[in-house]
Amino acid sequence: MNTALDHMGRQAKLAARRLAGLERATKDQALLAIADALLEQQAAILAANEADVATARANGTGAALLDRMLLTPERLAAIAADTRSVAELPDPVGEVFDQTSLPNGLRLHKRRTPLGVVGVIYEARPNVTVDIAALCLKTSNAVILRGGSDIAQSVAAITTAIQAALQRVGLPTEAVQSITDPDRAVVGALLRLDQYVDMIIPRGGAGLHRFCIEQSTIPVITGGLGVVHIYVDATADLERAVPLIFNAKVQRPSVCNALDTLLVQHEAAPRLLPAVVRELCAAGVELRCDPASLALLADQPEAAAWTMRPAEPDDFGTEFLGLVLSLKLVANLDEALEHIATYSTGHTDAILTSDAAAAQRFIQAVDSGAVLVNASTRFNDGGQFGLGAEVAISTQKLHARGPMGLRELTTYKWVGEADYVVRPG
Amino acid sequence: MNTALDHMGRQAKLAARRLAGLERATKDQALLAIADALLEQQAAILAANEADVATARANGTGAALLDRMLLTPERLAAIAADTRSVAELPDPVGEVFDQTSLPNGLRLHKRRTPLGVVGVIYEARPNVTVDIAALCLKTSNAVILRGGSDIAQSVAAITTAIQAALQRVGLPTEAVQSITDPDRAVVGALLRLDQYVDMIIPRGGAGLHRFCIEQSTIPVITGGLGVVHIYVDATADLERAVPLIFNAKVQRPSVCNALDTLLVQHEAAPRLLPAVVRELCAAGVELRCDPASLALLADQPEAAAWTMRPAEPDDFGTEFLGLVLSLKLVANLDEALEHIATYSTGHTDAILTSDAAAAQRFIQAVDSGAVLVNASTRFNDGGQFGLGAEVAISTQKLHARGPMGLRELTTYKWVGEADYVVRPG
Repeated sequence: MNTALDHMGRQAKLAARRLAGLERATKDQALLAIADALLEQQAAILAANEADVATARANGTGAALLDRMLLTPERLAAIAADTRSVAELPDPVGEVFDQTSLPNGLRLHKRRTPLGVVGVIYEARPNVTVDIAALCLKTSNAVILRGGSDIAQSVAAITTAIQAALQRVGLPTEAVQSITDPDRAVVGALLRLDQYVDMIIPRGGAGLHRFCIEQSTIPVITGGLGVVHIYVDATADLERAVPLIFNAKVQRPSVCNALDTLLVQHEAAPRLLPAVVRELCAAGVELRCDPASLALLADQPEAAAWTMRPAEPDDFGTEFLGLVLSLKLVANLDEALEHIATYSTGHTDAILTSDAAAAQRFIQAVDSGAVLVNASTRFNDGGQFGLGAEVAISTQKLHARGPMGLRELTTYKWVGEADYVVRPG
Repeated sequence: MNTALDHMGRQAKLAARRLAGLERATKDQALLAIADALLEQQAAILAANEADVATARANGTGAALLDRMLLTPERLAAIAADTRSVAELPDPVGEVFDQTSLPNGLRLHKRRTPLGVVGVIYEARPNVTVDIAALCLKTSNAVILRGGSDIAQSVAAITTAIQAALQRVGLPTEAVQSITDPDRAVVGALLRLDQYVDMIIPRGGAGLHRFCIEQSTIPVITGGLGVVHIYVDATADLERAVPLIFNAKVQRPSVCNALDTLLVQHEAAPRLLPAVVRELCAAGVELRCDPASLALLADQPEAAAWTMRPAEPDDFGTEFLGLVLSLKLVANLDEALEHIATYSTGHTDAILTSDAAAAQRFIQAVDSGAVLVNASTRFNDGGQFGLGAEVAISTQKLHARGPMGLRELTTYKWVGEADYVVRPG
């Protein structure tokens, strides 16, 4: 047993009991105080971050990762502004639903309640510290944070600011705690702290998610990994399909809802593919083509200007997270559904079609968190779906699927009221 | 890797894809066919059960457990009738909710879908085989069942009947599969079959639940363990409290929503306790009393007829599952809430009071799946709560809390429809 961690868990659970009874106004006041504290302690936070970044640079960390680690005055201001926005969102805690009166005399309802204590394990992005702390606080959950050891000093400085704000408004500082122990074994210990922690949210790559699934005795929200498909059926409006596919692939290729595989019905291919490939390749996209699409594209006059090669088996079912797209021609919807059932990670899949029956079959058959019709896969996101904030995008099926907002940081209790009734029988 | 189990998982996943597209009528027809098949194959099922029971008896199994294992013509008829009742229940799959139209052009809704493949691990009760298979089939989930090795022949015979019925109505027999391998290691392997299985439901004692939490890489619905409290405040209607407490403790003491600890506010004790103890002890209940309640009771004229002794520390926080009750006097609601926060397993806790403010504070502060006011704890049950059927009673906070019905065997997908919109930015 890890004694320090056990103590942290016990303190978090006590803090959660305090938080559970708070009015919305108190929580919003705390959120504004956190935003203020981040800016007041900007010098200390940026200095800590500079130290983290300098160490990482000296250790040969690449530019992309260094950028993810970096805090600047502008980024910190944006984080503070986001925290203020969370204060504006409605508070789901206390919502009453599924009200009913039963013949046995019970007046029954469900009431939304906090989960209790949330554990968050993340990697190189220090902003997650604030994002998740704010969303947990808004929903009356205590949180235990464990950022990557690369950003340990940044996380510690941010946590100091958050706790100062909590203290200022009279809330327990143990509502937001960070694990500063650099030993990776502490992550394993956190994942087994089921006596105190109610939910684990990993924010990071597939390896972190798998580690949590393997090791945790606490329910884990898995997600993030997206092998994303668009199927273009022969009835689709091919002209309007081109900018949509371009948006799905190119707008932000490094994220989980970006397009990975384009499936095109044979009849649509001669008109669609050259037009869409022209745009994609001009934006730097490399293609991995099945034999039929490669033959079609190789025949085009601009073929020499396009970066494409035959798809290898792994090119289907890979999340590229960059400017790469796999391409396949299919005979019909059935073949597309079969391909998606084999390769999709259940994150986001879309159909482009003018055939309402085909759209309905696709919606029914594709077993993914978000199934879209004539819309870019980039829409699968808490902000775009109107949730106001996003905790994570779940690709699992229990508790929450797809984008998770504040409501998904809550559970419910059944409340039954009666007039001294007993159960018959 | 367990090859046979892996094959079973793959087949279950394929069957789940078939089930996902079924109309309600087809599923209900299958349920009725299962009820018929159980009765048609009654001789084979009862013979298999007789063999299981004979082996268990020869191995020295106790009477209570033997009774749980036993099937009779009457019990089998009741199981078949329950299966027919499931056909009468509404089908939650396909329900549309949270519909919205967003400024970005998306028409969004959530649609209830099956989970996919459910794994169920249970112990000595062969009826669970049919109960869970029926509820999973109704919600278009495939199921992999693993009953205790004591009832292996019963489970095999029941599964044969179920699969014959599935075949008769043209559904894949792999929709309901049982693991017959008696090696307990197979349970561990099932718990790691996350490639195919979406949810694990343990049906059994605390040890089984803990084993699943420790070993599973698949989300587990934990529950069952109930350390259940009633707090009687000074304003309660003490006359009507007596039959209510009696019902909570005595009606069916072997189940998880039966009362374990009675907390009584000091002022109420002199009038309430002798009256309620008189009834309880007449029904054979043994008392474990804190010093204050023991002093009060020892002073009563009938004290010699009552079975009571000082409570040991473990008597609080123990699920008795029998005619034992722990008793404690408390100064006020705060002390009751503190006791419940320390000892409750979050299953069911109740307050008896005429003070609306006290009731609201109790409801808010007690972090349990069901919180009841002036009602017997025995009401926390899918049937009593109007769910029509009960899969389990969850004491965890993710996905479902309290009694789980058909809806809790489903998940949802987000469906977004639009007119070729792309994400701006």
